[in-house]
Amino acid sequence: MRLISFAFVLASLASTLAAQSSANYIQYVNPLIGTLRMGHTYPGATVPFGSVQLSPDTDEQPQNIGGKYNPETYRYCAGYQYDDNTIVGFSHTHFSGTGHSDLGDFLIMPTVGPLQLEPGDKKDPKTGFRSAFSHSTEVAEPDYYKVRLDDDGIIAEMTTTTRVGFHQYTFPASDNAHIILDLMHGIYDYDGKNVWTYVRIVNDHTVVGFRQTNGWARTRTAYFAMEFSKPFASYGYREFARQDYRGFWRKFDQNHNFPEMAGKQLRAYFDFKTAANEKIKIKFALSPVSIKGAISNLRSEISDWNFDRVKQQGQAAWNRELSKIAITADPRDDMVNFYTAMYHAFISPTVYMDADGQYKGIDQNVHRTSGWTNYTTFSLWDTYRALHPLFNIIQPSRNRDMVRSMMAHHDQSPEHMLPVWSHYANENWCMIGYHSASVVADAIVTGVLTGPEANKALDDAIETAHVGYYDGIQFYEKLGYVPEDKNSTSVSKTLEYAYDDYAIAQAAKKLGRMSVYNEFMNRSQSWKKLYDPAVGFMGPKDSTGNFLPKFDPLKTEGQGFIEGNAWNYSLYVPHDPTTMIEMMGGKQKFAAHLDELFTMHLPDSFFAETEDITRDGIIGGYIHGNEPSHHVAYLYDWTDQPWKTQERVRMILQKQYKAAPDGLGGNDDCGQMSAWYILSSLGFYPVAPASGQYMLGSPSIKKAVLRFESGRTLTIEGENQSDKNVYVKNVDVNGQRLTRRYVTYSDITGGGRIVFHMTDQPR
Amino acid sequence: MRLISFAFVLASLASTLAAQSSANYIQYVNPLIGTLRMGHTYPGATVPFGSVQLSPDTDEQPQNIGGKYNPETYRYCAGYQYDDNTIVGFSHTHFSGTGHSDLGDFLIMPTVGPLQLEPGDKKDPKTGFRSAFSHSTEVAEPDYYKVRLDDDGIIAEMTTTTRVGFHQYTFPASDNAHIILDLMHGIYDYDGKNVWTYVRIVNDHTVVGFRQTNGWARTRTAYFAMEFSKPFASYGYREFARQDYRGFWRKFDQNHNFPEMAGKQLRAYFDFKTAANEKIKIKFALSPVSIKGAISNLRSEISDWNFDRVKQQGQAAWNRELSKIAITADPRDDMVNFYTAMYHAFISPTVYMDADGQYKGIDQNVHRTSGWTNYTTFSLWDTYRALHPLFNIIQPSRNRDMVRSMMAHHDQSPEHMLPVWSHYANENWCMIGYHSASVVADAIVTGVLTGPEANKALDDAIETAHVGYYDGIQFYEKLGYVPEDKNSTSVSKTLEYAYDDYAIAQAAKKLGRMSVYNEFMNRSQSWKKLYDPAVGFMGPKDSTGNFLPKFDPLKTEGQGFIEGNAWNYSLYVPHDPTTMIEMMGGKQKFAAHLDELFTMHLPDSFFAETEDITRDGIIGGYIHGNEPSHHVAYLYDWTDQPWKTQERVRMILQKQYKAAPDGLGGNDDCGQMSAWYILSSLGFYPVAPASGQYMLGSPSIKKAVLRFESGRTLTIEGENQSDKNVYVKNVDVNGQRLTRRYVTYSDITGGGRIVFHMTDQPR
Repeated sequence: MRLISFAFVLASLASTLAAQSSANYIQYVNPLIGTLRMGHTYPGATVPFGSVQLSPDTDEQPQNIGGKYNPETYRYCAGYQYDDNTIVGFSHTHFSGTGHSDLGDFLIMPTVGPLQLEPGDKKDPKTGFRSAFSHSTEVAEPDYYKVRLDDDGIIAEMTTTTRVGFHQYTFPASDNAHIILDLMHGIYDYDGKNVWTYVRIVNDHTVVGFRQTNGWARTRTAYFAMEFSKPFASYGYREFARQDYRGFWRKFDQNHNFPEMAGKQLRAYFDFKTAANEKIKIKFALSPVSIKGAISNLRSEISDWNFDRVKQQGQAAWNRELSKIAITADPRDDMVNFYTAMYHAFISPTVYMDADGQYKGIDQNVHRTSGWTNYTTFSLWDTYRALHPLFNIIQPSRNRDMVRSMMAHHDQSPEHMLPVWSHYANENWCMIGYHSASVVADAIVTGVLTGPEANKALDDAIETAHVGYYDGIQFYEKLGYVPEDKNSTSVSKTLEYAYDDYAIAQAAKKLGRMSVYNEFMNRSQSWKKLYDPAVGFMGPKDSTGNFLPKFDPLKTEGQGFIEGNAWNYSLYVPHDPTTMIEMMGGKQKFAAHLDELFTMHLPDSFFAETEDITRDGIIGGYIHGNEPSHHVAYLYDWTDQPWKTQERVRMILQKQYKAAPDGLGGNDDCGQMSAWYILSSLGFYPVAPASGQYMLGSPSIKKAVLRFESGRTLTIEGENQSDKNVYVKNVDVNGQRLTRRYVTYSDITGGGRIVFHMTDQPR
Repeated sequence: MRLISFAFVLASLASTLAAQSSANYIQYVNPLIGTLRMGHTYPGATVPFGSVQLSPDTDEQPQNIGGKYNPETYRYCAGYQYDDNTIVGFSHTHFSGTGHSDLGDFLIMPTVGPLQLEPGDKKDPKTGFRSAFSHSTEVAEPDYYKVRLDDDGIIAEMTTTTRVGFHQYTFPASDNAHIILDLMHGIYDYDGKNVWTYVRIVNDHTVVGFRQTNGWARTRTAYFAMEFSKPFASYGYREFARQDYRGFWRKFDQNHNFPEMAGKQLRAYFDFKTAANEKIKIKFALSPVSIKGAISNLRSEISDWNFDRVKQQGQAAWNRELSKIAITADPRDDMVNFYTAMYHAFISPTVYMDADGQYKGIDQNVHRTSGWTNYTTFSLWDTYRALHPLFNIIQPSRNRDMVRSMMAHHDQSPEHMLPVWSHYANENWCMIGYHSASVVADAIVTGVLTGPEANKALDDAIETAHVGYYDGIQFYEKLGYVPEDKNSTSVSKTLEYAYDDYAIAQAAKKLGRMSVYNEFMNRSQSWKKLYDPAVGFMGPKDSTGNFLPKFDPLKTEGQGFIEGNAWNYSLYVPHDPTTMIEMMGGKQKFAAHLDELFTMHLPDSFFAETEDITRDGIIGGYIHGNEPSHHVAYLYDWTDQPWKTQERVRMILQKQYKAAPDGLGGNDDCGQMSAWYILSSLGFYPVAPASGQYMLGSPSIKKAVLRFESGRTLTIEGENQSDKNVYVKNVDVNGQRLTRRYVTYSDITGGGRIVFHMTDQPR
């Protein structure tokens, strides 16, 4: 009897799993969303959190022209813009949604006919190896991209594993086919970004090497191993850099069929004869550590030349991740927006480790993890807000490893700091704050990180918060705020440090370290010093304690803020809206202030001077296209008009996310914009990560089933939810009517059912 | 009784050892020999075959000025010229005696007063951190260098271990003392040679990092770890490269007291307060592998701050090496020349491996040896002639490891070739031939390398000799010679390939591989195809088999030769002088031809067009200053006038080697010039390494005791030897009158006694 019942359990488990995996969420993902204008996403192939992002690049825009910043570069943060009609080639690394960029390593391009080693003119692609293409032949799916290269009639297909890009090119018949390996190509390039390149031909179908760059990551090397399915007939390269040095002893031909290439600006090529419809495949493995590592990554991840199987495995991996939240929504665009957001949320951070656990540390040494996975691409100023809190709910194991990666970064960093922006064994110091403290704290408060590791992570956060030479901290610690005359954008910094300090305090409380709690709760009040009742906004003070004159809340430049003005940034007290609202004149006045924000008109000058913000991303004066406002719509929850949160959130979900290439109103920022969508569409949002509170909004889904790693599930229902019924009458958690305006981490991950009773009446 | 006799043996052994080690050979070494004009040696500190060569650099000469080669660079191959009177600083890596150069990594310079980060003008050293000095305060000994830096009154002293440079600076009292770490400085520099530099401040007395260059070694990185005996009070750096890229997010001060520095052209500085006569010491470790490796090299080689002990240990190590050949000679200059030659012979190749056995391979991967020592700095076109044969006699264990290093190079090289010029995990392809085959073969023929390793080494040499794309080999294999129209300097190449093939054949014979023997003996005849009886010299042929017209035996350029003309290079048939002499008209005519060579006048145009040769290095038309002639004086041994070999050799020993800074008539070439001196002064020379024959010359020593690793000793006596008695009447080997004009490897290493009976009568 026992045996039978055990078999029954197994069978039912199997059928549940089968049911889950048979659901096809891939169909709702459109990787082209965000590839036009501001989204800065890429359409190519990658697996969840993969090290390889194999994607077409449609243009090469140097960062500087004649020593001046080239604004066109910004559009090409992810290498691809949907309105281009030529493809330069397919490169292996791309950031998803960033507002500054790098990478674009190892561009591959197949061609036939006379060898061309210059990319050629965008307007006349036949002048180089680039090719015209049309969206009509383009297929973009999770881990699969296909396009016809019209110049030469070559079909390009690609898929990936974590560390290997798999190319499949279908050629016409040709005695003169080529595959170009462009080692000069990059994203956010400038003359001198390529520091060094080395290529070794191992045999007639295997090539290895590395590329070293000085870009957004200052000291970065990517190693590769490349295998062709067919031996090349001949090969060679050209060095495009000015030759300062050429030894007289290099007398014999080292540019053709000679197995070592090296220099600053190289393009290599491999020649083939092809039959009609002949497929040449390439496996291209990356390693952060060594050529040896790249070779063994290649061997360990793909053992044969079965392109379709690798694609199927990649898409199955995506489906597993996407199925962690199974929603019902309509119209279909809502399904597309949701699963594309899930897709974008699960691209970064990226695995930064060889298959054997070795990785390069920020100390420039090689390390090996003890069983955990090392990650990089931490765009923390963005992602601490909603992406990591989302991970603590739906990806706790990965988030735990991300925190471990941050702790390793701390241990290896020259500054003994947790990362600000962890970028391939580099700290690029992008943006402000020490928000890894928030990520660490949220992991501790939620119980995702426990025991000695939790205490160590907290210690690291505390140490980070005390690094005096970092971005005004010494003044912040001395004066209680960052003075604008000592360190610019001082208001933004003060407000964000204050929140980070709050997060540290919450983690300390959870771990029973009350003196730390007290110290950092005290620091977390710092924001109060910069509220200027005379103007009704936060404002910059100098080091003598005086507010700066000539303050303009519509402006960004010189006003103490970065990437936002006082209208948006002044509201950044996520950990204590109650006090902030009191200081700003009370609930009524504050709600009216928010109303004005959502309806005001921003002058053109604002967009001219404020980075990373365009009219695409705004609603009135509210800027959804950039992160400092991401919590703002939820602030009505602290007033007597929570229905305005509900209304605004639904409006933002609709207006700022569209199922189209230009569907994102701002940079996706490594998944933060997408995480906002996912959480808000489920009905809640973590205004202050590490608080344990997820503020209620208005769910846009009909129904969602969240499948947790614990095996528990949570069903969220939007009862009577519709485009009109955006208001929440009541919320029941497991049948209990909720009397607060937030749910807790255990409300969510404890499993069960949350029902939002929706209505068309604000209340 | 047994016990007592054992104790007696021990005591006598101890006293023997004591007697040996008490002999002070250090006193005869003058590291300043060769530092003026052509020698290209350096005066600084190094241990035998050490990885660190810590030496003063007296000038910085860029390789190119305005895109043109700067001929002044050549003088600074080793960083130091004796006629300079300023020192720029002390750098950690130097080639000894090369004719092209590189290195000069990690220049350290102590200063007091206002910080100067430019080296300043040679004519007015106060304009920068460089300092005036005078030879009167200079002390140069094996592994010890001392000088007074006159500008600031600082005494600089330095010594080394294999991988660590140990500096000791005695400062005046100053509130403003500095130690500059110049990461831009290098030898044979040009704009763009510095590829990347990274520095991390570990704590207030420890600094680590790396420097990557594109010089003679195309892809080279040197890692370092640096420890100060006293914490620095503050520090910083300046980046001297054009800044193509500076991220807007790097907002806070990262140039002062900020623990990470990186860029293309950096100079860092460390500030101190010093009391009068305060010593600040620095330990500076190198690694070819990693920062981690440099740190552990530092820890494992020097555990405290005892400068004097490290110096004593280094000098004791030198004395052990020097005492392997104990000579008696007079005048004292002969002692100085001999032991300075021994010193220079035991500097290169250099250890290229961390203390734990890890090293970087030419495949750019990290490898670990299985118990042997990996070496680099193989200047094989030079050193296969006499240095490695000398090693097979007096340093067989090291030479065996050098062959192992070459075999690893083969296995890791993209071309699957033994090294041509092994240069810090690079192949710089300097000069011609595949002379590692000769080194391998000599090791096999002498029995230094045996068993499966010997067969593997031979396989590697055979594979190397078949690499068709290397420097004309495909034509050589097809036509039996290198045709000048396909590959220039074709005569030199053909002659050298032919000798290398002979060496391979000898090794094959020793190992019983007769088909290889036959194949390569056949190839070794190739030289015959280029002897042109019409002109009486070797000459270049085109690929149709015709000698080129307008041949000029006095010229180098366009005549089929490199670094030598037909007068010298035509004689390069070391493995078959008998046949060559026959072809050139027989013994009598050939001797007259040699006489003409030694007495002719070379036109000025020869020096203008021929690299690496000046009037310093010639006797008539014989060019001792460069290697192709090194066997020539011994060719009289194949005529009826062997007394002319004796006479010429003694003349060369006297004229080309002087105990003075300008004492070397040509580049020491990593010890080849010195090895010629050592062997010739002992009375024999390996005209054809791997032949097992060491041709007799005329010993210039009175007596020499060679102590072999086997424990055997060989005593060589020059009976009646004097400046007049340069002729050899008879030679007795262990009492047996010699009837041939050579000794064998076993005659030498079998131990015993070789007596040269000298006379003033040619016979």
